[in-house]
Amino acid sequence: MAISDVKALTFDVFGTVVDYRSTIIREGERLNQAKRLQVDWAQFADAWRARYRPSLDRVMQGALLWTTLDALHRHSLDELLLAFQITDRLTEDEKDSLNRVWHRLQPWPDAIPGLTHLRKRFVLATLSNGNMALLVNMAKYSALPWDCILSAELVQAYKPDPRVYQMAVKLLGLRNHEVMMVAAHQEDLRAAQAQGMQAAFVPRPLEQGPSSMPDLTPDPSFEVVATDFMDLAQQLGTG
Amino acid sequence: MAISDVKALTFDVFGTVVDYRSTIIREGERLNQAKRLQVDWAQFADAWRARYRPSLDRVMQGALLWTTLDALHRHSLDELLLAFQITDRLTEDEKDSLNRVWHRLQPWPDAIPGLTHLRKRFVLATLSNGNMALLVNMAKYSALPWDCILSAELVQAYKPDPRVYQMAVKLLGLRNHEVMMVAAHQEDLRAAQAQGMQAAFVPRPLEQGPSSMPDLTPDPSFEVVATDFMDLAQQLGTG
Repeated sequence: MAISDVKALTFDVFGTVVDYRSTIIREGERLNQAKRLQVDWAQFADAWRARYRPSLDRVMQGALLWTTLDALHRHSLDELLLAFQITDRLTEDEKDSLNRVWHRLQPWPDAIPGLTHLRKRFVLATLSNGNMALLVNMAKYSALPWDCILSAELVQAYKPDPRVYQMAVKLLGLRNHEVMMVAAHQEDLRAAQAQGMQAAFVPRPLEQGPSSMPDLTPDPSFEVVATDFMDLAQQLGTG
Repeated sequence: MAISDVKALTFDVFGTVVDYRSTIIREGERLNQAKRLQVDWAQFADAWRARYRPSLDRVMQGALLWTTLDALHRHSLDELLLAFQITDRLTEDEKDSLNRVWHRLQPWPDAIPGLTHLRKRFVLATLSNGNMALLVNMAKYSALPWDCILSAELVQAYKPDPRVYQMAVKLLGLRNHEVMMVAAHQEDLRAAQAQGMQAAFVPRPLEQGPSSMPDLTPDPSFEVVATDFMDLAQQLGTG
């Protein structure tokens, strides 16, 4: 197993490719103006994301039947609208549009240039817990140059469940070590490696905002550690 | 239900988007030269395609467990290599490469310009009996600008099975009438309509070669009949 065996890259999306926190803050502040609200959208974004893993866990532990991320986001949103006391200030259409901010997330500045280089040599696929429609709409809105959209929805199990990684390898028609998972989250990469895939760690120190201090010391088992997607392209020989 | 409701187009691929017959003939003639063969590749292409529907039917009738189109193509190829008496003239790598001609099919001349227009307004997805890897590789090789690759493989059932069309609508997060099936084959379109989707017929009179005379009189129930993808783009207001 060598890096030169890699034929396809599968990407975690939230946090790795797109900057959900900034996008939610930016759209939220526009909503503050339009609706004369006084929400702290940094707090709101952090609270929304904090509900992400627990809501996936409820599905994976069987407390909820299969539920798409769009629906989980909406459930969390309704709780947050109550907590931030703006439930009555938004129409149903406005709530739906706010929930779909996840379909409009903006890429990190290096993401599209890096993907464009990488795409010359590799098949590029998403491998995200986002549902297919969310990922398709985001790719179109933000011009992300994927060859293929793959989602946990296709196997109705959320990462880091092994079935998600196995599905990607199988649908791409490749062998495990010919697929490299790219993510800003080490748990995701270790789960991919456990299925025989290779792993590229691209830490995103600003994912949780400028005041968080995540421990980004890379697991020494990762085949590649890159500072961003341009660096990844260079390390994989497509820069 | 109106044409203005359409948000996504799902495309049949073989025959509708790409010209499999010409591609197989062109690659086959190169193989004739390289290996000093004297195969009639038009005959070969027609015989290969003639085995397509019967091989899908064997899967759908339960005579075969789920088998990808790549594997069905390979089974048919092995039969044809025998029939054309060239089994011993090709190495295993050459046979594998010949089987993967389906990953390299060339689009009809109007396909990419038409899709490029259509993509401005609509989500464009494949909805093909080709397996995911085949469709991903073809899109990359032939620069087909899809937003999303969807395949019968995702539900392990071949068109015109209703599950294939239902899967597309569901994964795109849309309602039935917001998705329009585009195909050169009327059976495919009627099956999509039976699931509440809209239908655009784009006849491809040369699909089976210049000497075939298919009956291309359109079913009057189709919402759109277009001469090619540029015409389709124009009729859908994106030309």
